Amino acid sequence: MEEISKSPVSDVPTLADVAARAGVSTATVSRCLNTPDRVTEKTLKTVMDAVNHLGYAPNYSARALAAGRTNMIGAIIPTMENAIFARGIQAFQEELQKNGCTLLVASSSYRQDLEEEQIRTLTARGADALLLIGYQRDPQIYEFLKKRKIPAVLTWASEPSQNFLSVGFDNRKAMKELATDVIGKGHRTIGCISADTATNDRARERVEGIWAAMRDAGLEPDTLQVVETAYSIENGEAAFQQLMSGANPPTAVMCGNDVLAVGALRAAADLGLKVPDDVAITGFDNIELAFVAPVPLTTVHVPHRRMGQLAARALIEALHGRSPESVELPTEVRHRNTL
Amino acid sequence: MEEISKSPVSDVPTLADVAARAGVSTATVSRCLNTPDRVTEKTLKTVMDAVNHLGYAPNYSARALAAGRTNMIGAIIPTMENAIFARGIQAFQEELQKNGCTLLVASSSYRQDLEEEQIRTLTARGADALLLIGYQRDPQIYEFLKKRKIPAVLTWASEPSQNFLSVGFDNRKAMKELATDVIGKGHRTIGCISADTATNDRARERVEGIWAAMRDAGLEPDTLQVVETAYSIENGEAAFQQLMSGANPPTAVMCGNDVLAVGALRAAADLGLKVPDDVAITGFDNIELAFVAPVPLTTVHVPHRRMGQLAARALIEALHGRSPESVELPTEVRHRNTL
Repeated sequence: MEEISKSPVSDVPTLADVAARAGVSTATVSRCLNTPDRVTEKTLKTVMDAVNHLGYAPNYSARALAAGRTNMIGAIIPTMENAIFARGIQAFQEELQKNGCTLLVASSSYRQDLEEEQIRTLTARGADALLLIGYQRDPQIYEFLKKRKIPAVLTWASEPSQNFLSVGFDNRKAMKELATDVIGKGHRTIGCISADTATNDRARERVEGIWAAMRDAGLEPDTLQVVETAYSIENGEAAFQQLMSGANPPTAVMCGNDVLAVGALRAAADLGLKVPDDVAITGFDNIELAFVAPVPLTTVHVPHRRMGQLAARALIEALHGRSPESVELPTEVRHRNTL
Repeated sequence: MEEISKSPVSDVPTLADVAARAGVSTATVSRCLNTPDRVTEKTLKTVMDAVNHLGYAPNYSARALAAGRTNMIGAIIPTMENAIFARGIQAFQEELQKNGCTLLVASSSYRQDLEEEQIRTLTARGADALLLIGYQRDPQIYEFLKKRKIPAVLTWASEPSQNFLSVGFDNRKAMKELATDVIGKGHRTIGCISADTATNDRARERVEGIWAAMRDAGLEPDTLQVVETAYSIENGEAAFQQLMSGANPPTAVMCGNDVLAVGALRAAADLGLKVPDDVAITGFDNIELAFVAPVPLTTVHVPHRRMGQLAARALIEALHGRSPESVELPTEVRHRNTL
């Protein structure tokens, strides 16, 4: 880590400078900044004019040391480039903001080692609490958070052991519901394009959901043709081509998210296959791409904004010393034109 | 702002606890944490084992006070829900991370008053530097940043006075180029769906770019039919319907971004209009929606990732006391099927 030095800060305005300019005591300035409802309108205006004129800002580092808190809450997400994380985190931030908290964000590029490093970094930077995605990680990380007394909320999943606070949804159940509909349409040879199931618990549970539906329908789960790849339109195209060029091409391809499904749709068009007559394709998430796609996607709707909002509320509860309950949000299959 | 209290922090492990457990001096622990290359592998392992076992994390609040810096850099964006900001900020964060800096994010919902409040909040929380979108804001904010010695980089635009550090692109020039192509195809009755031009400098410059192209072609800029609305697919649909139900419906509708353009495309399909034969539609940004759209969009490609990366580098330069130069990135018209 490279050290960054700032120019000398000696002429940065202080509380005393503000007090001098406003002609009041430093205690009055503090009151204006911290409990403005306890000062008169006139004093508040005089002091805030001085604050603005001098460009004064309270020193939260000093405050944080004194109070043992920073009102900064960290979120570590795989990437901001997927609309679902952007949407959930936007709602999370709006709710934090209403409660006087600031969001610290880091992204891990879906790498567990990077996520661990970022958990330590955000904690070291003073994050009071953390939002994390999924539940699968080194138990030592949970130990670390416990020892540091940092509340964490797990999102985008329902933590199966119920040992941790989570605000999410059941990926297995959601995908099982969609897979049951796929099988109900008569499909027996099924393909699946998934993210890495070894490191991504959401991806693994979605595949397990398809297996569960197959079992219930008397199909052999082993016959599910799974291609694992990173989430992108291009990768969805390549994986779909791979599935279709196999010995026993599937009649339905269930994708781990809408981005992969849009790639599959594009590849199907390139191969001259009609969707859903020649091959059915499904997504997961219900982002804008899903309904804007050339053939509007049948997919699973996930309440991302609601999840972000409730996750923020849970962390704020925890920071107030209360014990928020985990929340499992319902998902819903959205039937459009690809199944 | 509601105050949040944390549970007592007295049993949070200290540097001395780590030193005691590892059987080394506190100075050695500091070296392991700050300059690990200056200690032996063996010492590093012993100390880091103790750090991990105890769940110790260095206290950046105390460090920040001592060093006058936090290595935290703030970004205030209109919303994370637009893919272009998510993409640019993801690249910005990746570059910051490489340089040992953490990202603080706030979003302003395109509201200038909220942005101003967030500039003060992030600064108060210890942001060493800020990324801002566009250049149009109360001059008093620039004064505040100057007095606080907080470097700021303006992005998504080229700041016209060249008085501020900016890493962006020329919205007027980019849209003028596209409008010239639209006029070159024979269009004389042109519509425009734009975000609020009074508060959004990027939106205003894009409209000005169309006017400039019209002037160059001998068309009367006043004849441009502008509908202003917030960026969303639904609003794009409604604005397109409004333009088409006027007395003199345009033969080409230029949209302020791809999201609005996708809305326009959907509305055109609903009205039974063929694109581009009955009406041409153009976008701006070149996000995934643009090429996934039912008719792939002719749009302006903006190098969002590159912009985020270079903006991070500029701020890091500034924090090192150097004077980075502003950068104007090239944009490029992408011809697809809607013009």
